[in-house]
Amino acid sequence: MTTRRELLARLRAAVGDRNVAWRPEDLLLYEYDGTIEKKLPYAVAFPDGADETAAVVRACNELGVPVTPRGAGTGLSGGAVPARRGVVIATTRMRRILEIDPVNRLAVVEPGLPNIQLSEAAAVHGLFYAPDPSSQKACTIGGNVAENAGGPHCLSLGVTTNHVLGIEVVTAAGEITWLGGRVPDAHGYDLRGAFIGSEGTLGIVTKVVVRLVPVPASVVTLLAVFDTVEQASETVSAIISAGLIPAAMEMMDRTTLQAAEAGLQCGYPPDAGAVLLVELDGLAEMVDSQAASVRGECLERGATDVRTARDAAERELLWKGRKGAIGSLGRIAPNYYILDGVVPRSRLVDVMATVADVSARYDLPIANVFHAGDGNLHPCVMFDEREPGATERVLSAGAEIMRACVEAGGSLSGEHGIGFEKQKFMPWLYNEADLENMARLRPVFGNEGAFNPCKLLPGGTGCGEMAHQEAALRAAGPDAYV
Amino acid sequence: MTTRRELLARLRAAVGDRNVAWRPEDLLLYEYDGTIEKKLPYAVAFPDGADETAAVVRACNELGVPVTPRGAGTGLSGGAVPARRGVVIATTRMRRILEIDPVNRLAVVEPGLPNIQLSEAAAVHGLFYAPDPSSQKACTIGGNVAENAGGPHCLSLGVTTNHVLGIEVVTAAGEITWLGGRVPDAHGYDLRGAFIGSEGTLGIVTKVVVRLVPVPASVVTLLAVFDTVEQASETVSAIISAGLIPAAMEMMDRTTLQAAEAGLQCGYPPDAGAVLLVELDGLAEMVDSQAASVRGECLERGATDVRTARDAAERELLWKGRKGAIGSLGRIAPNYYILDGVVPRSRLVDVMATVADVSARYDLPIANVFHAGDGNLHPCVMFDEREPGATERVLSAGAEIMRACVEAGGSLSGEHGIGFEKQKFMPWLYNEADLENMARLRPVFGNEGAFNPCKLLPGGTGCGEMAHQEAALRAAGPDAYV
Repeated sequence: MTTRRELLARLRAAVGDRNVAWRPEDLLLYEYDGTIEKKLPYAVAFPDGADETAAVVRACNELGVPVTPRGAGTGLSGGAVPARRGVVIATTRMRRILEIDPVNRLAVVEPGLPNIQLSEAAAVHGLFYAPDPSSQKACTIGGNVAENAGGPHCLSLGVTTNHVLGIEVVTAAGEITWLGGRVPDAHGYDLRGAFIGSEGTLGIVTKVVVRLVPVPASVVTLLAVFDTVEQASETVSAIISAGLIPAAMEMMDRTTLQAAEAGLQCGYPPDAGAVLLVELDGLAEMVDSQAASVRGECLERGATDVRTARDAAERELLWKGRKGAIGSLGRIAPNYYILDGVVPRSRLVDVMATVADVSARYDLPIANVFHAGDGNLHPCVMFDEREPGATERVLSAGAEIMRACVEAGGSLSGEHGIGFEKQKFMPWLYNEADLENMARLRPVFGNEGAFNPCKLLPGGTGCGEMAHQEAALRAAGPDAYV
Repeated sequence: MTTRRELLARLRAAVGDRNVAWRPEDLLLYEYDGTIEKKLPYAVAFPDGADETAAVVRACNELGVPVTPRGAGTGLSGGAVPARRGVVIATTRMRRILEIDPVNRLAVVEPGLPNIQLSEAAAVHGLFYAPDPSSQKACTIGGNVAENAGGPHCLSLGVTTNHVLGIEVVTAAGEITWLGGRVPDAHGYDLRGAFIGSEGTLGIVTKVVVRLVPVPASVVTLLAVFDTVEQASETVSAIISAGLIPAAMEMMDRTTLQAAEAGLQCGYPPDAGAVLLVELDGLAEMVDSQAASVRGECLERGATDVRTARDAAERELLWKGRKGAIGSLGRIAPNYYILDGVVPRSRLVDVMATVADVSARYDLPIANVFHAGDGNLHPCVMFDEREPGATERVLSAGAEIMRACVEAGGSLSGEHGIGFEKQKFMPWLYNEADLENMARLRPVFGNEGAFNPCKLLPGGTGCGEMAHQEAALRAAGPDAYV
């Protein structure tokens, strides 16, 4: 048995007194991420570098205290919530860009670096970092690695795993190791690939080697306006089938448009049934020719208007609406629950009809704003958690939509991860033997059950419902057992 | 202890009498792949489908007989050589295209399908399968998955792992499971990624879901002629630094050019020091503009001539020379040993100088033909194995070159794998703890040491030098122990 006093002493020895948070009012900042669930940690450690991180992990392992890694806490599946309390390891102090190598087109960065800052720094070389989650101003590269994050511009360029060459990690066992390196196609088992998207259950990233790609010479951004979601969905398939691969192709439905327009005044048509935001990039001749083709496909399928951003400012405005859309939904209801499912593009129309049906049956408004080109849906269920039974109804509606995605041949997550939220749905996709095979990966990295517990795979001891907040800890003195 | 008679009976029960090879003269076809080492299996099984494959694996596991998977046997690191004898499982009977889905741009195929046949079948939909190893007329999709194969056109589109969405595998334990599926960015641990490139040490692929990509509207192929390898190497870096990403960028040196021209009459300049074969694809306007830029970069760095293929026939001819170059080297010496290393593009010039130095010091001609854009070298050491000590000298020269690649910040394999050949070099890149971490992946898939033994990772019992051929087996009767 370990007391809080002992735990804090070990953490302070590992990272220094100033870099351990333990006061209840400080810990409150680390009990949640972008999802509904909350849980207070016993302490938060802020290591700098792999050695300090490894020291924290080993100390927790020796004391039998669970560990949960955390980037910026913007995650949307509960990955950074300390489900069985214990210690949160935050990457906040590791936020440096260590190197930008324009000839080999790569950068070496620390995990706590906010995503957008890498592209800003690489811009002087005419390069940028491709994965661009909507939270890119806040979310970190390390968190992106944990969740294998996507973003609007991942349609043509791929998600995080396609842009990470190598990672230095502290495994769940507290060992420091490199997976992959500075050159692509590394030899040996691709444990780099297995680690990316493992949602912080195998270890913590302490350095990341990423690919940088050239800033495109020319960009055209189109906004196509439709009367119905069905028309917009059909257009998505038509554009891809025509051999066009836009840099991004995003859909927003009427609910989203109205909220975004009210909140951000970005020039969206609030009466449209749906819009497609399509971006093309490359050489000027190519994008002009492709833009004409996209416009043609849109008009042929009933678009009432296809606008082109006249300049960078107008393009920024169109994207501001898209990237801020989820936030704007706060105007409609105090809470929202954002889902993340993937369906084959050819099934978009059916599954969007199911989403509308669920919305009607449960009497819950659902806004749709998503990466249409990838078939990556983000239905956003709006509600008021103070209303009795509302949260349960929302979770039930969400489960029905996820089930529909799986039955359409899709999957449970495009980019937000499984986390705590959807681990119970994994048996829809995998039989027991498959899940057991996956679980066997954990001991490979030394995770015997206490490293980011209750995430990604179903079950595990003590992984029942998370209580919302426990007042007990706040009152507990330093000699309480942890 | 198991006799051959018992083993054959179990194999016949699993796949049928006709689908087990056991006569010494039949087994001779399965003792080698594209490398130097040879070893006779006890038997070869030809299962059809996952159930039969699993039955063979389970029978071998029960009898304690090693298993080695095999595609077309074109591999260049010994992956399909049964290093500790036992049973070879050939995918020859599983060669069907099960589905081509043009809307979702994917195909479902069996592992024994020759690579080129997939692109041929997809062509009616305007699609193709991107990874194109030089052996693509013979090599199989399953073998490509095992080795994470590349090819000249992987520069812009990525290697096998970027094009495989899901795989059905029979694990080393004999269990049937799916890794990944029909949609990208699957949830859970990316064991798909860890399996691809695992060189047949974790299991056997029995179905593969691959991405198909659109056939480009326009293609321009340039042949740039240089006096020296250095000029050509510098041009490679310059082209990439200028923001151009050709579909392919291949280098051939003088030795290669002379052999290819003598053997294939493809119009190469035999007196050049080096050529770059650069292919650009996309919309017509774009490729014309890019071709002009590439031509400019070449001339600026000393190219004496930059030719453009006038039509498809001339383009085919230029590629015929590149894809047949290695075979043509037979004109120079009876044997060759082809290496596969990767270096950062910025170090190409240095490492090519080291290759020339090794060639001079060991008095061994070395031809260079390789994926320059990726920094993926293929020095090809020519020799006559009948000359006493020649093989040892070649292996020693090869080791020096591989060492130089690693010291330049590169790696031991771009696309041919580690196999038997280079497992002993892995400690140059990984410390003992790293290698132990990798080895822990094997039991996850049920490999306790007898599934494709002596490959990828160093050591293991009975993994010393492979004897060249054992006459003993040929004489052994059916009651000999296996």
